[in-house]
Amino acid sequence: MADSQELKVAIIGGAGFMGSAHSKSWALAALQTPTDAKPVKAVVVERDLDLALATAEKFGWAEAADDWKAIVDRDDIDIIDVVTPPHMHADIVCYALERGKHVFCEKPIANAREDVERIVTAARAASGVTAIGFNYRHNASIQYAAHLVASGAIGDVIQARFEYHQDDAFSDMGWRRYKARGGSGASSDIGSHILDLAHYLVGDIAEVNASLTTVKLTDDDDSDVDDGGAFLAHFDTGALGIFSFSQKSHGNFAHIRFEIDGTEGGIGFDWNQRDVVRVFRKAADGRSQGGFVATPVAAGAPGVWFGSSSLGSGYLEPSTNLMVDFLGAIEGGDRPQGDLEHGARIQSVVDAVWKSAETRSWVAPEPFGA
Amino acid sequence: MADSQELKVAIIGGAGFMGSAHSKSWALAALQTPTDAKPVKAVVVERDLDLALATAEKFGWAEAADDWKAIVDRDDIDIIDVVTPPHMHADIVCYALERGKHVFCEKPIANAREDVERIVTAARAASGVTAIGFNYRHNASIQYAAHLVASGAIGDVIQARFEYHQDDAFSDMGWRRYKARGGSGASSDIGSHILDLAHYLVGDIAEVNASLTTVKLTDDDDSDVDDGGAFLAHFDTGALGIFSFSQKSHGNFAHIRFEIDGTEGGIGFDWNQRDVVRVFRKAADGRSQGGFVATPVAAGAPGVWFGSSSLGSGYLEPSTNLMVDFLGAIEGGDRPQGDLEHGARIQSVVDAVWKSAETRSWVAPEPFGA
Amino acid sequence: MADSQELKVAIIGGAGFMGSAHSKSWALAALQTPTDAKPVKAVVVERDLDLALATAEKFGWAEAADDWKAIVDRDDIDIIDVVTPPHMHADIVCYALERGKHVFCEKPIANAREDVERIVTAARAASGVTAIGFNYRHNASIQYAAHLVASGAIGDVIQARFEYHQDDAFSDMGWRRYKARGGSGASSDIGSHILDLAHYLVGDIAEVNASLTTVKLTDDDDSDVDDGGAFLAHFDTGALGIFSFSQKSHGNFAHIRFEIDGTEGGIGFDWNQRDVVRVFRKAADGRSQGGFVATPVAAGAPGVWFGSSSLGSGYLEPSTNLMVDFLGAIEGGDRPQGDLEHGARIQSVVDAVWKSAETRSWVAPEPFGA
Amino acid sequence: MADSQELKVAIIGGAGFMGSAHSKSWALAALQTPTDAKPVKAVVVERDLDLALATAEKFGWAEAADDWKAIVDRDDIDIIDVVTPPHMHADIVCYALERGKHVFCEKPIANAREDVERIVTAARAASGVTAIGFNYRHNASIQYAAHLVASGAIGDVIQARFEYHQDDAFSDMGWRRYKARGGSGASSDIGSHILDLAHYLVGDIAEVNASLTTVKLTDDDDSDVDDGGAFLAHFDTGALGIFSFSQKSHGNFAHIRFEIDGTEGGIGFDWNQRDVVRVFRKAADGRSQGGFVATPVAAGAPGVWFGSSSLGSGYLEPSTNLMVDFLGAIEGGDRPQGDLEHGARIQSVVDAVWKSAETRSWVAPEPFGA
Repeated sequence: MADSQELKVAIIGGAGFMGSAHSKSWALAALQTPTDAKPVKAVVVERDLDLALATAEKFGWAEAADDWKAIVDRDDIDIIDVVTPPHMHADIVCYALERGKHVFCEKPIANAREDVERIVTAARAASGVTAIGFNYRHNASIQYAAHLVASGAIGDVIQARFEYHQDDAFSDMGWRRYKARGGSGASSDIGSHILDLAHYLVGDIAEVNASLTTVKLTDDDDSDVDDGGAFLAHFDTGALGIFSFSQKSHGNFAHIRFEIDGTEGGIGFDWNQRDVVRVFRKAADGRSQGGFVATPVAAGAPGVWFGSSSLGSGYLEPSTNLMVDFLGAIEGGDRPQGDLEHGARIQSVVDAVWKSAETRSWVAPEPFGA
Repeated sequence: MADSQELKVAIIGGAGFMGSAHSKSWALAALQTPTDAKPVKAVVVERDLDLALATAEKFGWAEAADDWKAIVDRDDIDIIDVVTPPHMHADIVCYALERGKHVFCEKPIANAREDVERIVTAARAASGVTAIGFNYRHNASIQYAAHLVASGAIGDVIQARFEYHQDDAFSDMGWRRYKARGGSGASSDIGSHILDLAHYLVGDIAEVNASLTTVKLTDDDDSDVDDGGAFLAHFDTGALGIFSFSQKSHGNFAHIRFEIDGTEGGIGFDWNQRDVVRVFRKAADGRSQGGFVATPVAAGAPGVWFGSSSLGSGYLEPSTNLMVDFLGAIEGGDRPQGDLEHGARIQSVVDAVWKSAETRSWVAPEPFGA
Repeated sequence: MADSQELKVAIIGGAGFMGSAHSKSWALAALQTPTDAKPVKAVVVERDLDLALATAEKFGWAEAADDWKAIVDRDDIDIIDVVTPPHMHADIVCYALERGKHVFCEKPIANAREDVERIVTAARAASGVTAIGFNYRHNASIQYAAHLVASGAIGDVIQARFEYHQDDAFSDMGWRRYKARGGSGASSDIGSHILDLAHYLVGDIAEVNASLTTVKLTDDDDSDVDDGGAFLAHFDTGALGIFSFSQKSHGNFAHIRFEIDGTEGGIGFDWNQRDVVRVFRKAADGRSQGGFVATPVAAGAPGVWFGSSSLGSGYLEPSTNLMVDFLGAIEGGDRPQGDLEHGARIQSVVDAVWKSAETRSWVAPEPFGA
Repeated sequence: MADSQELKVAIIGGAGFMGSAHSKSWALAALQTPTDAKPVKAVVVERDLDLALATAEKFGWAEAADDWKAIVDRDDIDIIDVVTPPHMHADIVCYALERGKHVFCEKPIANAREDVERIVTAARAASGVTAIGFNYRHNASIQYAAHLVASGAIGDVIQARFEYHQDDAFSDMGWRRYKARGGSGASSDIGSHILDLAHYLVGDIAEVNASLTTVKLTDDDDSDVDDGGAFLAHFDTGALGIFSFSQKSHGNFAHIRFEIDGTEGGIGFDWNQRDVVRVFRKAADGRSQGGFVATPVAAGAPGVWFGSSSLGSGYLEPSTNLMVDFLGAIEGGDRPQGDLEHGARIQSVVDAVWKSAETRSWVAPEPFGA
């Protein structure tokens, strides 16, 4: 139409599930962002040009290409959206950051410690804005839950429980199940999501104690990464964390749940009831009167669409909200809610989880870029 | 990009809530449709050109205009999307149909019987495909529920209950609360949605017996349409229907619920749990064993996105599915799930509800186009 | 043990489901009542002495008998608990009242208008305390809901919806399905329960408009009463009521639900979540902020056991609470929550429902004892 | 009445919460047991005779006493029900077992290892039947869940999660918060309950890794036991267990939840929805089709009252079922579901949890009576 600033997006590796999801979210972000900086779906890059062309057609990108460096080099491209397997992230992200691009990178940031270090170094030196793809925290109910915790509504956190269970590993997960192809296991693939929520809602983690599982269901199952696990955690504040996750949990799909016990109240969330937060606030007499109240987020609160979250939100809304947050940071110069340094922080805890499961002991995360 | 057929859409009256929702759904429909017929958001028309320009910018339409006839007259426009107040529908819809356009019209189809008659006559004579904006039935769980009923899974329907409660009439609803401006009351605004579901899931209605309410909460409330009500219904099959609806129901937002009792089983749905259907199938001994099972819709079923409805669907998915259905009908020559004649059928029952509430008696719907 | 006042109970017709339930409730009432008036399970009366003996053994009654008049005549019996089919109620209740007994009578009070009249006349003349077996209202959450409505928390009622669905009529219901044996249909058997709740929570009903169903599923089904139905109602206040019920609702068991919309808020209840009330209270700005909150009843509230309803209540607690209320009325001279005159009031509405379904018109209840 | 065998019960320490609960359960067990062995509430023993007398009156016991040895010595007493603080259990239980009594003992069995050893030795030598008070597993839905797992419906267990959260430690818990008075912390008080469920549903535990919390909320809080915690566990089968519990969890009351992931399906349970089990069974294609189904337990299944669990069960039903199971074992010579040796097994895991939390390492339970 007119005066709005166009931010041209190139997506690298857009033919898969994440490419499909991002393609919808960028389209919605252009309509949902309150600012004049509107994303434009410019180029989709895949290794194979035919695949790139088909993806452009199917997912609505103006151009297709098979050489990501050539696209990153183009002056008219503003945002590089990296949805490749994680072992390719560092090369692409660093190259893009060095060329002044804004970078949106899917999680996990990378599997190898050296890759993460490279990204953190590049991100610190870069002029571009970065974001990591932790979309679930952008659900309006979770944003409201974080607001409540941050405002002191539940006092100091005593115990916090985070779960993510799905059944994806009962069917073909492609590269995700093989280390050499960039796979990193349920611990990283979905464990990182609830670690992001834990950092967002409670705070940093001082140490973890983990156990991981790898269950072979068929003789030809040659996956070499974990399919589930659990860990205890001590937050910096001393609060106790319990995390469980699995990609072999029949009956669960994208089942994120958390519950946070505080000295003054508590908060609960279930993705299958994603338009409400369960809230408890201590009564005046110090004793629980009643119990959790299932509280829909009010119209106008952050992340709410159409005037009310109760009209019904799904997977697309938080993913789009994340991009709107990123776009706002690009235009306003703010940091987005989760940048690549945050992604590295989460990865340092995943790394500690891996080490703990091997050593059968408590392990403190070793920070990146220290 | 390429070979896909572009279907240029012009939206008439796109600045309001429905314009916002349709703008997102058209964008998603272009990515979600399995066919080559991709919608393109070409023109937004509003009475005021400045408003049209701002809407185009905000909601992502290529052009803005203030003369709907001029836009309908254009040869390059394929689809007319009518989201004006209902008393303007007949003029626009008939004009567009006469010019061979495909027409998507928001519900209710119209309030005045003569308007509905005109639309039915025009639709029957037209070459274009038509659709009415009953979006909720395109939720994947409801599609699955309809499949179950149609396949005989619950036997003959004995009793069916439909509810739609929201709190919208506690705040400003604009033209919706005034007859002269196209408003038609909760009976038509949301009652029509559950009537659509009832026709989809159970069948046609033979007679209704209604009571409507109009509650004045403030001295300056000069609304002249109902704000809620209820009616009993006898379906053509003899099944008993119970319908209740209100726009003054605190605590409820877009709260659609239904439950259908059959001779062999039963089905239930709640919009706040919109990714599952409650299903009961009679055990072999003829007696209920256990009770309802909350059944998420399987991957690959109609209306399911991202491989699973349990990833989380909201308001956008069914609205987009409706447009995808319409686009498929345009390309394939099929009738969409709900065309304008279906919209007229629903309106004939709304009309009977109004008459019944006035006469305090059972009233049979008087069909249009008879 | 000691100084407590023993109130000897004789149950008339105790071998069936209600006898089983009352036998447990009387045992619990002796432990739960806060007063010194403790019920003692003295005599069970059945027509057949062997059945009476077996019942006494099984359900814990000290004596068995087959002549109810002889038992009622005994001076040491204080309370007559009538759980026979309804067509026998009037004779037993009136005989007991005339002999100064306290009378607890199961619902419905009676089917024939002349029977109800006789009971009302006898009850008005009697010195004994009476109670009718509407147990569900004694659930702690419902008691709390009634307290909220009565205290003005939701303002004036606009629309109130009551449902009771079960699947009992898919199996043998014995006398309940035959008029001549005291059966009165779903309208009376379970419809009366939700009518009781409606009177308790909202108030008296001015007129009803009903439709009833009788579905024959097998050739040898010779039941002659309704198996379900629905009615609209206007309360004396002008509020709109919607009632639906069925005993042929697969997947539902004792599924009582209600939702009450008020000008200042709303309340909801679901028997399958019976330890919470959904409550909405209007925010200061007049607009719904958030939605229903699922509120467990606080420790110490009426009807709560073990310090918290969230420890888990079932069917027994409200049934026992009803008896505790009755015992308190006997000791304290108060009227219980629902006496036989209240039972007659409910029956007058059931009677109007029957007449309305026949005449296909609005019918006002004709009071008893007028 | 008649020929039924009376089993006289003496309760030791019956004035508190557990005394109140047992008093109701024994009354109901007499009505609910299918056998002729009916419990009779004979004597309540408290240290203080006045308290004993008041308790007898309030909770319906025929006699009161203050010397437990004298009561245990009586020939006419068949069952000793021990509800004292745990540090008194060993003396009473061993004394009663040595005198040939049947012994029902509340959990935890004891805190000191030497006490547990004494009880195990006595139980093995005794002629009487013993039971430990793990009541929750006797909920009909949990019984059904155990049946499903045992029958192979979900295949091999991969991951199992158990939670018990309540808010009791925000108010006065008396002796429970002090080691010297028999208190043992949330780990033992409620952790033992979910350990019982885990053993019942999944199997024995090989090792645990725990972290416990003790949060002081007020200056005068001199409690010296944990108020919550969590532990990872490896079952003997290799399955991964995650346990969390807290008595400082605002908004939760008796909130027991579990979810068990198997290779062929999964099972979930929530005490706040205690009349259903969530069940998933793998579809033929090996892939999840749909998700969990909320399955009410069928009429006639173990633990179901009144023909259907959906009529509504609460806290009393499982507690009574436990006693009915115990009574059946006394009459039939079977072992009850959980005897005192089972209580000792659970305590050996609690003991390992304590040791693990101290040593910050994986600890294997050290069995009793080995």
